[in-house]
Amino acid sequence: MSALSGVGVGRGIAAAKVLKMPEPLAPPSDEPLAADAGAEHQRVQAALTEVADDLNARAAAAGGDAQQVLEAAALMAQDPAILDDVRSRLDVGANAEKAAWDAYAAFRDMLTQMGGYMAERATDLDDVAQRVVARLRGVPAPGVPASDEPFVLVARDLAPADTATLDLEQTLALVTEDGGPTSHTAILARSKSLPAVVGVVGVLDAVADGQLVIVDAKAGTVALDPDDASVTAAGAERASRLAAASAPITDGALADGTKVPLLANVGSGKDAPGAVEAGAEGVGLFRTEFLFLGASAAPSVEEQTAAYTEVLRAFPGKKVVVRVLDAGADKPLSFLNDAHEENPALGLRGIRALRASEQILRDQLTALANAQAATEAELHVMAPMIADREETEYFVALGKELGLASVGAMAEVPSIAVLADQVTEVADFVSIGTNDLTQYTMAADRQLGSVAALQDPWHPAVLRLVKMLGDAGAAAGKPVGVCGEAAADPALAVVLVGLGATSLSMSASAIAEVRAELLTVTLEQAKERAARALAASSAAQARQAVSS
Amino acid sequence: MSALSGVGVGRGIAAAKVLKMPEPLAPPSDEPLAADAGAEHQRVQAALTEVADDLNARAAAAGGDAQQVLEAAALMAQDPAILDDVRSRLDVGANAEKAAWDAYAAFRDMLTQMGGYMAERATDLDDVAQRVVARLRGVPAPGVPASDEPFVLVARDLAPADTATLDLEQTLALVTEDGGPTSHTAILARSKSLPAVVGVVGVLDAVADGQLVIVDAKAGTVALDPDDASVTAAGAERASRLAAASAPITDGALADGTKVPLLANVGSGKDAPGAVEAGAEGVGLFRTEFLFLGASAAPSVEEQTAAYTEVLRAFPGKKVVVRVLDAGADKPLSFLNDAHEENPALGLRGIRALRASEQILRDQLTALANAQAATEAELHVMAPMIADREETEYFVALGKELGLASVGAMAEVPSIAVLADQVTEVADFVSIGTNDLTQYTMAADRQLGSVAALQDPWHPAVLRLVKMLGDAGAAAGKPVGVCGEAAADPALAVVLVGLGATSLSMSASAIAEVRAELLTVTLEQAKERAARALAASSAAQARQAVSS
Repeated sequence: MSALSGVGVGRGIAAAKVLKMPEPLAPPSDEPLAADAGAEHQRVQAALTEVADDLNARAAAAGGDAQQVLEAAALMAQDPAILDDVRSRLDVGANAEKAAWDAYAAFRDMLTQMGGYMAERATDLDDVAQRVVARLRGVPAPGVPASDEPFVLVARDLAPADTATLDLEQTLALVTEDGGPTSHTAILARSKSLPAVVGVVGVLDAVADGQLVIVDAKAGTVALDPDDASVTAAGAERASRLAAASAPITDGALADGTKVPLLANVGSGKDAPGAVEAGAEGVGLFRTEFLFLGASAAPSVEEQTAAYTEVLRAFPGKKVVVRVLDAGADKPLSFLNDAHEENPALGLRGIRALRASEQILRDQLTALANAQAATEAELHVMAPMIADREETEYFVALGKELGLASVGAMAEVPSIAVLADQVTEVADFVSIGTNDLTQYTMAADRQLGSVAALQDPWHPAVLRLVKMLGDAGAAAGKPVGVCGEAAADPALAVVLVGLGATSLSMSASAIAEVRAELLTVTLEQAKERAARALAASSAAQARQAVSS
Repeated sequence: MSALSGVGVGRGIAAAKVLKMPEPLAPPSDEPLAADAGAEHQRVQAALTEVADDLNARAAAAGGDAQQVLEAAALMAQDPAILDDVRSRLDVGANAEKAAWDAYAAFRDMLTQMGGYMAERATDLDDVAQRVVARLRGVPAPGVPASDEPFVLVARDLAPADTATLDLEQTLALVTEDGGPTSHTAILARSKSLPAVVGVVGVLDAVADGQLVIVDAKAGTVALDPDDASVTAAGAERASRLAAASAPITDGALADGTKVPLLANVGSGKDAPGAVEAGAEGVGLFRTEFLFLGASAAPSVEEQTAAYTEVLRAFPGKKVVVRVLDAGADKPLSFLNDAHEENPALGLRGIRALRASEQILRDQLTALANAQAATEAELHVMAPMIADREETEYFVALGKELGLASVGAMAEVPSIAVLADQVTEVADFVSIGTNDLTQYTMAADRQLGSVAALQDPWHPAVLRLVKMLGDAGAAAGKPVGVCGEAAADPALAVVLVGLGATSLSMSASAIAEVRAELLTVTLEQAKERAARALAASSAAQARQAVSS
């Protein structure tokens, strides 16, 4: 059997047949209408109804958030204004596919111009348009395939919209041609504990629907046409991992009893119950963007106070680390930074954007201080993209002025690691965002498949920067946590603790595996593994040095 | 007197009256044509002729490269196809300004679609269109202002096209609202030894044409309405700096005799004579993009051999460091990487792109080996964007296989500095590109004004990475040069030597000042200054710590 390589996400393994995600449809031709406009109008109308019915059926089966997304799409599919527009286009000689396609495109452009929430819905329309044209053309609709049997999904990459409709019962593993360890696909895989291998160059050409593969995330390989013995071994390994993941919930600790609090990354108040259920000892990264995205102005202090209080209430006596608004030109908020930037990842974002609009920052910190006063949670507040001591001093002083007890810095910009000794003098704590730290240290866009090999938090350059932060934190007596996705990789979690991380925060679903792995090593062993990884000369070598 | 602050470029000083660069014209209105189309057509024709005459006059006065650029623009202004298009637009009711504007825009779009060299000329058309509309509107043309007296140019930022027509006789200093220390304006200022302060927030509103200012690049300030004593002191300092710059040419060295070779950055063969004249002891950065940009395919080995041989011949017995093709999605070469990237600075560029198209790299290295065999120069070849030992090994092995004697790595990606010990084991030399190293270390786009304060090679985080490279080079016995613009700043040049830089490469025009400054310190003193800069907590503090 042959095998393809990529970047593994997690340590899981699965054997199943491949289902490939269809490529997007080719746009319709410009051929003029050859049939009767009235008849074609009815054909489009029928297609719209079928698509809507299909979406509604999928909505009912999906439930939860996905149900809402799909029901909204079904409504859009049947919007009477679109059908009218289709008719006008047919009347001036457009063919049915073209008329439908352009009508949706016009509607999408209108939504985009409205900005905010409506603009975010615009991309959903593209999916609806593709479904309608596929129906008219008599070909399968693009998008996530469905199956009654377990399968391995092979795709170019998954968009957030695709992940809402993914059938988690039947999807055993994900493989993508593009994307790195911090892509949407990888984040989904971690949050759902699905084994994945991303950035597998050539996989779309190499595999066919129905072909048997073994996806081994730990090895970062996709084995084609494996023999029976390999399939059996993979099945046994999968079963033993699932068993470990359901072991009793205890506080995070190493084999020698060293405490390593295991915290959850949460994106809004509704993630909190799941985190508690998974045994999170608190929240290591509470993202606050959900309050701001889609709004035309920053929410009021009162609104924010209510939202933060709700989350903090779920964690009495426990640590909750809140990150203030993290936005830039790639996540534009018209009231913060709507400039066009050539490289938004290197632009006016995070603390830089907030400092330029200080009232927004002051309001958020005030609301957090209110929530701190109103609850029993142990609140810590940090800012993204802090680069040096000067920026840390600014943020810490402002937070303290507004009444916060613990104010710290996220370590994402390489400079903050290089200057860790200076920063830990003034910050109450540091939390390492491994995704961005890796992106900047390696100068490799975390979303870009062609440089995926460099976007690996196992890279010894990244690990050395983590060690600088860990050493500085230990010297200054300040906690240094990790809240990037790297903490969700059990083998890497051990290395991070060996480098000096004092807590780990991850998707709630990853906690069980990390808990189990930490219990297998002492602090000395973790340090010894960290030393081996630091001495490696590539991410792949570091992984291997630790696993061997 | 009050003063504004920004980022100083160089250490020069100048006192003169302000000339502001006009803002771009507002686009023409959509008002329908109110006059006779035939008469308006003649009015547009007259405006085109006047603009062409003006451009030709400026071309004759400018000479050199600028002459060609301006003559080409004059030809475009009078293109008969454009005049025909203007007439058609007038005939359907467009007003004269709108007709001219849209005709140029249509022509520009056509050029853009042709790609390559023609597409690069497209932006020149925008300048012509602005001039024509200004003439029709009876307002001054935008662009670099001219004056018979010395002046300080104050602009939002300068585009490469502006710099071609800048009157260097009368321009004593540059001040910009946008841009950082690696912007086009800063590069121009260094290459022409003009004092400049960039990123001066609010300067366009704060100063008026004719207002007296003192631009102090060393202090990074623009003093408004200075008193006579200050103007006299500035004049005296300027005279003494000009005198130092014309001191005898000697090899670069410190006061204690420590040799620090001073090399030139050159962009093509025709820069070589100027470098020799300025006393460059060789070439520290020979950029090879000029051979590739605008071409539809990579040049042949023969063409490249001829071009490299020409440059190497100018430096018999001297060091010439060639950088292989440095391109990415922001400098697209259709044969290398024409993908759309969200963050091209973090994309498939430099060695990454070359490795993905290895034949192009092999051809270039073969041509360089041919030129090495055909000349007496001491050739060193390096690749941009090398991130770690694995990439270094790849590039060194390939260069050696193809016959090169000395193969090294550019240090621009932060990871290479963090892993300097590993990389200096395998590279023959390292050359630090401070512009990109700063950009990535601080996660701040070198072209973006809003984050200019972070784009400063004086930042202690950048200096610490330089020290890691310097220390590793010393331990491995490998040279570590600096070829970024930081080396052209005399005070910073001393610090870089103190951090372990063994040679400095810069614009030829900057060499005299750096030579003079190095002669004022011993190696111990340079190290002591470096230590003070490293201990600072911001770029501004580092500058101050060294100057005090």
